[in-house]
Amino acid sequence: MKRIESTKNTRVKQWKKLHTKKERDKTGLFLIEGMHLIEEALKFKVPMEELIVRTGTEYALLDVGNIDVYEVTDEVMKQISETETPQGIAAVCRKMEPKAIDLASAKLLLVDQVQDPGNLGTMIRTADAVGLDAVILGEGCVDLYNGKVIRATQGSLFHIPILEGNLKEWINELKSVGTPVFGTALEGAKNYKEIEAPHSFALLVGNEGNGVNPELLKETDANLYIPIYGNAESLNVSIATGILLYHLRG
Amino acid sequence: MKRIESTKNTRVKQWKKLHTKKERDKTGLFLIEGMHLIEEALKFKVPMEELIVRTGTEYALLDVGNIDVYEVTDEVMKQISETETPQGIAAVCRKMEPKAIDLASAKLLLVDQVQDPGNLGTMIRTADAVGLDAVILGEGCVDLYNGKVIRATQGSLFHIPILEGNLKEWINELKSVGTPVFGTALEGAKNYKEIEAPHSFALLVGNEGNGVNPELLKETDANLYIPIYGNAESLNVSIATGILLYHLRG
Repeated sequence: MKRIESTKNTRVKQWKKLHTKKERDKTGLFLIEGMHLIEEALKFKVPMEELIVRTGTEYALLDVGNIDVYEVTDEVMKQISETETPQGIAAVCRKMEPKAIDLASAKLLLVDQVQDPGNLGTMIRTADAVGLDAVILGEGCVDLYNGKVIRATQGSLFHIPILEGNLKEWINELKSVGTPVFGTALEGAKNYKEIEAPHSFALLVGNEGNGVNPELLKETDANLYIPIYGNAESLNVSIATGILLYHLRG
Repeated sequence: MKRIESTKNTRVKQWKKLHTKKERDKTGLFLIEGMHLIEEALKFKVPMEELIVRTGTEYALLDVGNIDVYEVTDEVMKQISETETPQGIAAVCRKMEPKAIDLASAKLLLVDQVQDPGNLGTMIRTADAVGLDAVILGEGCVDLYNGKVIRATQGSLFHIPILEGNLKEWINELKSVGTPVFGTALEGAKNYKEIEAPHSFALLVGNEGNGVNPELLKETDANLYIPIYGNAESLNVSIATGILLYHLRG
């Protein structure tokens, strides 16, 4: 146990830097906050490097092994935390290499340029709930290790592989092994209810305002839409993802 | 056109007060921000009392009739706005009395103690998209006229009636006219896929952490659950609402 009382301590400055994607990319580290996420990280064997606890926070029940534990003041915890009311416990974790996926039998979510952290996190949580094999993030998505994304996943980012990559290449690989790829679009699309739950599939969803990149929609096996019966112009992308995934899962 | 340059102007202070539920309740007024919401409010004939535009914002295409228009400085707009990057246009609107609903043929969403503004707004947007007749907010929900709720609805709060009331009384009234009420619960509940789309229904969803009040779950015709196939503990309430509403709508 080490104590840190000054917000000017170099370690505190290093932790704060992890609020930026640049630093997370450089170091391969990211921050998580709150007891629930820390428990999930430990349960799913995410490499944890440092535990940071506010004086008085109970953590004896956590089996953190022999990693460094830092006891910090309320003021220091406020600096590290990205929430308005810090929970009093945080950890520095190391990004993991996701394991390989058998594309021929996989159920996947492909995400094109989703920029709202709450949406992306909720989509990952839903992908986990419906039992997908992986989530693939295309270029232009908000960073997976953004604090808001992590919180919205409620720990699901530790439960299923999440990969980054070129979606066009992914689509072509999936098609080559016979896994159908379904885009989402308003025009030239089929009502999703016409599709029966397939053995394997990839669902491709897109940006909040612009939807999926039209170049990618050209590559899919079919594009789907969810009917709008009222006056809303569209559904929120995370809601549409939930409806479509639970339908395709069957 | 009136010009306001000082953030200390009494009218600016009145507008800012509308950020609080207390003031909205007292005056019956609420603020909306952004061109899209203002267009939706006008299209759906929401009474508008004042239009507030930042100098240079184009609004000539809006048919606001002869209401008061205030031109304000960037500094004043920042005070009125609840977003980080104000869009340069806002309006003061008057709450409307929702019209009556025929309960015997209605499709409704009942919301118990949902406290996250993004969740409530998204649920209202989804309820609109799926063509519900109304949304009923029970006690303990975040205020409908909270700025974040309004933005997350994307204007859907102007498209369908949204009522506030005692959910127990609503459930009993619905049952008395033969409209089935479906709660959502993890225990003692049916897989939602076992339910065929009914002629009329009310779906009852609940708080992010605690779910629906057990006292209300006792009053329903049946309680439903969405299977979790992965390691997530639950679905986000707005996602669950989307999946269930699109299923019940048929």
